[in-house]
Amino acid sequence: MAFQYLELADEIENKILKGDFLTGEKLPSLRKMHQDFNHSITTIHQAYIELEKRGMVEAKEKSGFFVKMFRQDGIRQPDLQHCKAEPQKVNVNNLQKSISKRMSDPNMSLVGYAFPSNDIIPIKQFSKIFKSLLPRDLEDVFGYDWTQGSLDLRRQIARRSIGYKKRVSSGDVVITNGCIEAVSICLTAIARPGDVIGVESPTYNGFLQQIEENSMYALELPTTLNEGVDVAKLEAKLSSCKVKACLLNPSYQNPLGFVMPTENRRKLVELLNRMEIPIIEDDVFGDLHFHEQRPPTLKSFDQKGLVLYCSSFSKTLAPGLKVGWIIPGRFLDRIMEVKSNLNLSSTKLNQYLLVQFMRNGSYDRQLRRIQNELRKQMCDITRAVLRYFPKDTKISSPEGGLNLWVQLNDSVDAVELYKEALQDNILVVPGVLCSGSGKYRNCIRVGCGRALDQKLEKTIQTLGNIVYDMIV
Amino acid sequence: MAFQYLELADEIENKILKGDFLTGEKLPSLRKMHQDFNHSITTIHQAYIELEKRGMVEAKEKSGFFVKMFRQDGIRQPDLQHCKAEPQKVNVNNLQKSISKRMSDPNMSLVGYAFPSNDIIPIKQFSKIFKSLLPRDLEDVFGYDWTQGSLDLRRQIARRSIGYKKRVSSGDVVITNGCIEAVSICLTAIARPGDVIGVESPTYNGFLQQIEENSMYALELPTTLNEGVDVAKLEAKLSSCKVKACLLNPSYQNPLGFVMPTENRRKLVELLNRMEIPIIEDDVFGDLHFHEQRPPTLKSFDQKGLVLYCSSFSKTLAPGLKVGWIIPGRFLDRIMEVKSNLNLSSTKLNQYLLVQFMRNGSYDRQLRRIQNELRKQMCDITRAVLRYFPKDTKISSPEGGLNLWVQLNDSVDAVELYKEALQDNILVVPGVLCSGSGKYRNCIRVGCGRALDQKLEKTIQTLGNIVYDMIV
Repeated sequence: MAFQYLELADEIENKILKGDFLTGEKLPSLRKMHQDFNHSITTIHQAYIELEKRGMVEAKEKSGFFVKMFRQDGIRQPDLQHCKAEPQKVNVNNLQKSISKRMSDPNMSLVGYAFPSNDIIPIKQFSKIFKSLLPRDLEDVFGYDWTQGSLDLRRQIARRSIGYKKRVSSGDVVITNGCIEAVSICLTAIARPGDVIGVESPTYNGFLQQIEENSMYALELPTTLNEGVDVAKLEAKLSSCKVKACLLNPSYQNPLGFVMPTENRRKLVELLNRMEIPIIEDDVFGDLHFHEQRPPTLKSFDQKGLVLYCSSFSKTLAPGLKVGWIIPGRFLDRIMEVKSNLNLSSTKLNQYLLVQFMRNGSYDRQLRRIQNELRKQMCDITRAVLRYFPKDTKISSPEGGLNLWVQLNDSVDAVELYKEALQDNILVVPGVLCSGSGKYRNCIRVGCGRALDQKLEKTIQTLGNIVYDMIV
Repeated sequence: MAFQYLELADEIENKILKGDFLTGEKLPSLRKMHQDFNHSITTIHQAYIELEKRGMVEAKEKSGFFVKMFRQDGIRQPDLQHCKAEPQKVNVNNLQKSISKRMSDPNMSLVGYAFPSNDIIPIKQFSKIFKSLLPRDLEDVFGYDWTQGSLDLRRQIARRSIGYKKRVSSGDVVITNGCIEAVSICLTAIARPGDVIGVESPTYNGFLQQIEENSMYALELPTTLNEGVDVAKLEAKLSSCKVKACLLNPSYQNPLGFVMPTENRRKLVELLNRMEIPIIEDDVFGDLHFHEQRPPTLKSFDQKGLVLYCSSFSKTLAPGLKVGWIIPGRFLDRIMEVKSNLNLSSTKLNQYLLVQFMRNGSYDRQLRRIQNELRKQMCDITRAVLRYFPKDTKISSPEGGLNLWVQLNDSVDAVELYKEALQDNILVVPGVLCSGSGKYRNCIRVGCGRALDQKLEKTIQTLGNIVYDMIV
């Protein structure tokens, strides 16, 4: 149901974010756009109004629409660093531990974290569900549960997994306590200590933590800023290194934010299917798309049951919901065995809540609400970083998800920045956490899960000032 | 607050279960008891009435109190088998997997399983708590959570952990998704693949599953039927074999049901403290005592922070609650790291429910109710097994917990029994699952989590008939 004006607005927004239109610049007039691109005047006007709503442009009376507040030089994209050819022993947990200890400090401003604020929680609907809980529901909800999880919830999840090569049914789904547990179960189910796991570079720090915890090795796969894993280079790499599995986050990746193009996905899965290498696909940001449609999953191209698809509701419904799932393909039995030995089953109560919530179709409405909020938040935070950070700061411009990747001046060590910022109660995630080989020392991740209020703006300003002071 | 008559009733019940009084036998008259043991007539009478309530004896008008329905020869205790001297590679997961697949079949009667029925769930109180949930509670309950878990719940747990050598405070507790997860986290936190883990023999099959999953080795520790691990023999064994940790279930052990005596606990912990060997203590049945007081925990003797205490509310409040905890002593940081990498944190909603429930003191009332029900159920099921199984059947007589250990005629292979019984929709747990070295082939575990209704009695009768047919 793509409306033409929305598609056009997306296209222009993209150009603004990428710096094709600069701050203060006037957008082409309605007439010019009509002549050049064959859209109707109404469509173009609607698109401009939409962009105004999104905070990207402002209308000036009788002059037209102007790009807001972006810096004259637009956004400069971060650079990617060369991947090590060899698998790496990972060492991120020590730094992560010291960060984790600070995370629970209520005074700390968690600038680097990829979780949404409590504003996304559909309190009213949840409240209604709790109020209507009957005693017999409670008996069911607190009774013993089996490893695979609620059949009703698995049905709902299967129903949403349309367009897959092989139909997904409720029997193909295993419920977990969130997506991190899903990935952890997949990793221990299909690989052993000493095995090599292919990851994007940079990659989500949580992946590296699990690889280290399991005494596995990380192989950095050549990754581009806008398209993710480079399939041709991957093929070359696989010929020289035995990889047990790839652990990927192809949609609005943490931390870079890229979306792997459809054609690349197809090629990637074909290649790894052919080589019989399993893919653990973390799709936790897949539904957080700013444009009309979500990207296809890797799973949808899987011909051999070699993709273990993982996701959760934590980014779209409530950060503390802790309900995730795996669609493990041919590894179903093994995944159930690991889950059963780990904690037997997941909490039933939260699964019940979700089933009730999804039954009345609220989930799609919820997604649209969240997507709009996140898009706005990410634009606002991008602008704030551009405004308060030194001019040579480079920043990614994702089309979905929760993360910005920010590259600072070469002389800035982000681990030092992390330590400095702690004194102002700001918790930064340094880029080295996202690299198995200590790269990206001058990068940080910035989370966009909350709205840019005065407090957050002040935090970003403070952080910018610290960065200014650190440049030599 | 021990009432004399209750203590006396416990003592007599014990004697009945152990066969000192046989079925149909008359208990000593009130006068005789008064003369022999110096209790008041009132106390003795109260004790007999209590035993009548428990279903152990029946009053016959003008004749006195008679032992009910136990077989003439009383209960014969199962035999223990000699422990292998060497650590064993464990192989139970294959059999376990085929059993697990059948567990979720709603037609299956799960005779072997150690979980309570839904009857224990305090539906009314839970319902009240849900009804009174405010929107701001919901925001808190579904907001992001930190690895250690709810402070309020940890406070409640710490408050119950009195009498420990070193005071337990909320900061010493880590919340998990149930006790199985607690044990799993402890095991991976302190041991690596290839390490040797000391376990009771027989031991809880879940321990062996985790040891196998983690590619560790199990060392069977000489265990006695009524007192658990033999500390002197353990000391000898440790001098010849390097053990990384001991994984024990000292209170109402699964499957034997023994309670380790206080003095042995002290000696055990002293020994392992001295040798710097950590103990993972699974205390999940500790509160399910049939006598006045619960046994002390191993943790309470721990001088060096080497005991990792694990428990949960699944056996006392609701089988599907999935809230457990670890008191990890000196391993706190490491446990938090493993938990964080595994699934970041546990479900907050269930923790909130527990806090509300415990706040108004309902938990102690709940425990007393469950203890009484379980005691009754275990007596009833013991009697049913004695009635319907062949005469040479031997059976344990635990003083708490949920499990009976049943030894069948030497010619019966319990794995065959398991297969046979499946055809009658009965799921048996064969004893070999509880041994790292394939012992206890003629034993089964029988769970006492539900009341002996007609259906269960019929099931036990059917099972008894199959056993009769299998004896050669």
